[in-house]
Amino acid sequence: MSELVEFKAKKSDFAAWYEQILVAADLLDKRYPVKGMPVWKSAGWFMQEKIMRLVEEQWEEQDIEKCQFPLCIPETFLKKEEDHVAGFEKECFWVTKGGLNELDVRLALRPTSETAMYSMFSLWIRSHSDLPLKLHQTCQVFRHETKNTKPLIRVREIYWNEAHTAHATAEDAAENLVKAWHGYRTVFKDQLGFWGLVLRRPVWDKFAGSLYTEVLDTIMPCGRVLQTVGAHNLGTKFAKVFNIQYQTEDNKPEDVHMTCYGVSTRVLAAAISIHGDDKGLVLPSALSKIQVVIIPIQAPQNYIKRKAKQQTDPAVKEEMLANEKELLAGIRQTVADSAAELARTLKRAGIKAHIDDRDAKPGFKYNHWELRGVPVRLEVGPRDVDCEADARMCRLCPRVMRSEDGLDKKDILQADLVEEVLGMNERLLASLWKAAEVHNSTHITKCSTIAEVKDVMDTVGGFAKIPFCSMDEDGADAEAVIREATGGEVRGYCPDETEVLPAGTMCLGDPTREAKYWGFVARSY
Amino acid sequence: MSELVEFKAKKSDFAAWYEQILVAADLLDKRYPVKGMPVWKSAGWFMQEKIMRLVEEQWEEQDIEKCQFPLCIPETFLKKEEDHVAGFEKECFWVTKGGLNELDVRLALRPTSETAMYSMFSLWIRSHSDLPLKLHQTCQVFRHETKNTKPLIRVREIYWNEAHTAHATAEDAAENLVKAWHGYRTVFKDQLGFWGLVLRRPVWDKFAGSLYTEVLDTIMPCGRVLQTVGAHNLGTKFAKVFNIQYQTEDNKPEDVHMTCYGVSTRVLAAAISIHGDDKGLVLPSALSKIQVVIIPIQAPQNYIKRKAKQQTDPAVKEEMLANEKELLAGIRQTVADSAAELARTLKRAGIKAHIDDRDAKPGFKYNHWELRGVPVRLEVGPRDVDCEADARMCRLCPRVMRSEDGLDKKDILQADLVEEVLGMNERLLASLWKAAEVHNSTHITKCSTIAEVKDVMDTVGGFAKIPFCSMDEDGADAEAVIREATGGEVRGYCPDETEVLPAGTMCLGDPTREAKYWGFVARSY
Repeated sequence: MSELVEFKAKKSDFAAWYEQILVAADLLDKRYPVKGMPVWKSAGWFMQEKIMRLVEEQWEEQDIEKCQFPLCIPETFLKKEEDHVAGFEKECFWVTKGGLNELDVRLALRPTSETAMYSMFSLWIRSHSDLPLKLHQTCQVFRHETKNTKPLIRVREIYWNEAHTAHATAEDAAENLVKAWHGYRTVFKDQLGFWGLVLRRPVWDKFAGSLYTEVLDTIMPCGRVLQTVGAHNLGTKFAKVFNIQYQTEDNKPEDVHMTCYGVSTRVLAAAISIHGDDKGLVLPSALSKIQVVIIPIQAPQNYIKRKAKQQTDPAVKEEMLANEKELLAGIRQTVADSAAELARTLKRAGIKAHIDDRDAKPGFKYNHWELRGVPVRLEVGPRDVDCEADARMCRLCPRVMRSEDGLDKKDILQADLVEEVLGMNERLLASLWKAAEVHNSTHITKCSTIAEVKDVMDTVGGFAKIPFCSMDEDGADAEAVIREATGGEVRGYCPDETEVLPAGTMCLGDPTREAKYWGFVARSY
Repeated sequence: MSELVEFKAKKSDFAAWYEQILVAADLLDKRYPVKGMPVWKSAGWFMQEKIMRLVEEQWEEQDIEKCQFPLCIPETFLKKEEDHVAGFEKECFWVTKGGLNELDVRLALRPTSETAMYSMFSLWIRSHSDLPLKLHQTCQVFRHETKNTKPLIRVREIYWNEAHTAHATAEDAAENLVKAWHGYRTVFKDQLGFWGLVLRRPVWDKFAGSLYTEVLDTIMPCGRVLQTVGAHNLGTKFAKVFNIQYQTEDNKPEDVHMTCYGVSTRVLAAAISIHGDDKGLVLPSALSKIQVVIIPIQAPQNYIKRKAKQQTDPAVKEEMLANEKELLAGIRQTVADSAAELARTLKRAGIKAHIDDRDAKPGFKYNHWELRGVPVRLEVGPRDVDCEADARMCRLCPRVMRSEDGLDKKDILQADLVEEVLGMNERLLASLWKAAEVHNSTHITKCSTIAEVKDVMDTVGGFAKIPFCSMDEDGADAEAVIREATGGEVRGYCPDETEVLPAGTMCLGDPTREAKYWGFVARSY
């Protein structure tokens, strides 16, 4: 793709901006001829893998073991848990032939891995000393989506990380989910620079076969929300179906209590969407394959002439002009050497640097790397290095300029390079987080009428916070009323809600019932 | 699995040893009910991923970009290259249904990625400035093997890394393969500790659609050889089929010259097989999830009593006995603290350490970790730490004892820990490499009659090196003669063979023809 693309403005047409940036920044190629299965180019795959690595590091710290299960699930396994299979059957891709022959048992490309994993859990778990059993894997799952696909958000081949755990008690399982959320929040806050709202889903919208489902709903720039994390307390339901029991210390058989949780390419979709601007991607340093792009600014043809002009001693001036060609070559070499040395210094400090010494104008290069979201640009030119070695300078330029967050162009001593780059990356991440948090808090609107909810959905978007009667099956009718009138769904409630619901407040979806929850309504992807 | 398993001797029954160790060391679980698709447990998956990472690092250094292509290949793509599809069609798993509906175009689970990738190459390559295009991916491919499956060696879901490149000239392509071999050899020699014989395959045994195929054949302990690396020069054949052309500097259209190469779980199979012994896995440190296992040896109940006995001063003796309980608890705590401190020291140096403080006898723990191949065991007991802090000792014990290679138990000052562990790991790797090289060189036997070849195949195994007429199609009949008489196949010839074939030597497979090659015959997996 060319850099000359005229970018759609993110604010006025987010959908177009999103589709365009994935291609323009060379993350994906959608021309592969299977719907919902684009090709990941190296820049995009780096980001996806990096997010997976960050999550894996959290699980490693929590002693969750990394394993790998087969992609194919026999139909017989998938059918063991009724609710579960009902939730996925219509979305499965089915392998029916091997070579030239029909298979005896059809194989589903896993739509999720519960049934594959839990069949094995029943072999692995015997006694209380086998618990907790905590596994995770990074892999792809497949869903035959019939709706319109959308890159990274609604696709047919989904790359993700999924964790599955089994515990002796319900308390252990619930506690494990708390740890899971801690892990996710650490990655999102410390590395990715955004978060969202953690909601417990209404019963009618929970994961097929679970006790309850908690999610992270992230508010996208267009005002729609995107589920970026899903975490499920499975209770003992799967344990009963897959016969996963353990012997207690007094030799009684007990069902295990299970949890599972995962994050997919939607995290990347959200990171791109929330941080990006009309120039292209904006990446926190953790997500950028190149953390500092070094652009040597070469001395212009008349550099020596201009310098000579400033000399007061005519002899010096004359000598400079006599040796102009050599001096010009010399300063150009010094700039190139300095760029190489700066790259080495960064590399030694574990910062990935790239020198862009292509034969092109600096402005072209600036656009090129801004489009790709490189967090820090380093410029080094003749005036920076035409001095004693220890006085050499360079200029750092953050991908986004926000003076209020300490993000400005900065001329620094080369000796301070590593410290300055680390500082700039830290300020960038903090600034992205702050902006994302402001976006969140300005997109949750308390509403006390359905008309207000509708207005929020149609204008600012994000969440409408409303009094709501029930998150159990008996709340479904009230939800339908709201959905029909506003186009938004009741996405759930905050398990750690602090705002007290005034007694006697009635449900917005069913004015005959008292509200028991602050419900969160939004239009979603 | 229990540690009490009586191990099959590797030498006398390698096949049984191999099957058993994968399960006993907890690498794979074969009870998953799809043939040829076992579950990777965390220890096994760590090793497989580590090998992939080591290869990826080589490709990163060579500026080969990491990408990810979809798993599913439309039948229409796969059929574009006739020879190629003929080579794979009968082995494909076919997805024919999505949800409840038949798919319009059947999708193959990729058996290899040429057709998927090269369709995109034709979109990405326009001009000479787009070349070379060098990509790699780590993924799984599927083959509906009808032969007996064998874990890691002949399976239906194959994890691998594959690289694919396009170049302007035939020379560039050939040169790229030289670099590829350099990368593989670096990983095998510097990290995995074994190699094998690089052979160019006879034409009748080359990769479907390639110009020529070079492989690494590794000689397994049983004497059969295993192809562990495959590298292919594709010439312009795929370029023509997929219309991958570039404009030269003088604007002429030219076909690109392509190469591809890959390594799969067979590398892990070979590493396990070659290094392992009758106690279990033997791992070079790069492959071991735990590089040092620390076993605190706790002070026995009578430790203080015995120490008191040695005292000459009766007052001291009496005081010790009076405070026996506290003193015993104290020394035990000192051992535990010391173990923790040693682990921290190793971790700071980037060495993965694990403290095994389970309530079990040291002998049980030794067996447990020997089975799992941990390269270095560290023992720390009361006598090691019952002294001034800077005089504290510990004992290092390498997974294999080979005095001739400097691999012995060694009591060291704790202060020297990191250096000593690094040294021991280095000697272990060198020793494994040496043993593997000896195994190679003692398993290549020059033969001048078919009877000798048969004898080699039936006894020592490995390669018989024979005079052979032709590696082109016209050599196939001679090969059939040898195969029928000896059970071994002509696996190819060394492209860098240095031994001169005496003029007038006749072919062993066809005595009417003069030999042109030193051919290598072996039975294979």
